Amino acid sequence: MITTIETSQHEALMIKTQINAWQNQVNKINELLLLLSDEKLMREIAPGRNRGVYILGHLVAVNDNIFPLLNLGKKLHPQLEEIFISNPDKKVTELPSISLLKSNWNNVNENLLSSFNSLTPGQWLSRHMNISDEAFIKENHRNKLNILITRTNHLSYHLGQLTLLKNAESVL
Amino acid sequence: MITTIETSQHEALMIKTQINAWQNQVNKINELLLLLSDEKLMREIAPGRNRGVYILGHLVAVNDNIFPLLNLGKKLHPQLEEIFISNPDKKVTELPSISLLKSNWNNVNENLLSSFNSLTPGQWLSRHMNISDEAFIKENHRNKLNILITRTNHLSYHLGQLTLLKNAESVL
Repeated sequence: MITTIETSQHEALMIKTQINAWQNQVNKINELLLLLSDEKLMREIAPGRNRGVYILGHLVAVNDNIFPLLNLGKKLHPQLEEIFISNPDKKVTELPSISLLKSNWNNVNENLLSSFNSLTPGQWLSRHMNISDEAFIKENHRNKLNILITRTNHLSYHLGQLTLLKNAESVL
Repeated sequence: MITTIETSQHEALMIKTQINAWQNQVNKINELLLLLSDEKLMREIAPGRNRGVYILGHLVAVNDNIFPLLNLGKKLHPQLEEIFISNPDKKVTELPSISLLKSNWNNVNENLLSSFNSLTPGQWLSRHMNISDEAFIKENHRNKLNILITRTNHLSYHLGQLTLLKNAESVL
């Protein structure tokens, strides 16, 4: 039975390591947001590209979608999907305020972290809600852990873009 | 003993899921590189920021450093560190050619993938080479798996930047 306990500890450590990596990306974005004024967040990350505010809203909406995807409950801010996922930047002219988006961002991430910590290793390896039981038998890598990993990468992808707003020259 | 086998399978699946996520990021960068001409790679991702060629070299150098960090052997292209990690873009004026960098990129990633697949789950949870045995006792999340996760995020971070070169307006 010692082997069983050891391997079970291994699983828990693997999950802990991945949740830490997720939280590190969230923390890095939080640190960056402290450095970016609302005026900077209204700028494009590069000429003709997405504005900071759109990327922020997009990250909230994509993270919010993790709740139903991992069977953790409903989205907290479902109205954001239409603005920040279904449509590209500048298509929707009336955006939520930056302070509201930041509040939503914190709300979603705090609730996600608490939910993440409540799942067992076995639950992390069960199917996510976008794949059927039948299909999952053949594709067991399409599990909840895989969602956590890909959504962590999604945060990094956009962090690499948002960081371009730091020390950006004023266009004014 | 059935429990032992199941948990061992869980560990293997967790590692497989993470290696898949790594390879997905490598593949996405490969697909992007097919779309970017050498002329585009010589451009800055945003005004005053790193050029595409620098980010490519930086990714090769950082990935190459995974070999010693995971105790998998020596770097394949140690000369890249000085140009693409120790110095910022435009500091070193004589860069390797883009075709050579692409060849190094493929070489490093192919060898890494094969090495990754050779490690057991227990080895993935052992310390990486930048932390001592003593310190690792207290900080067991600083393991080889954590390096794989953070380096996968590193690829995503710069993929988010490199993608800005796609359809970029010509400066000529």
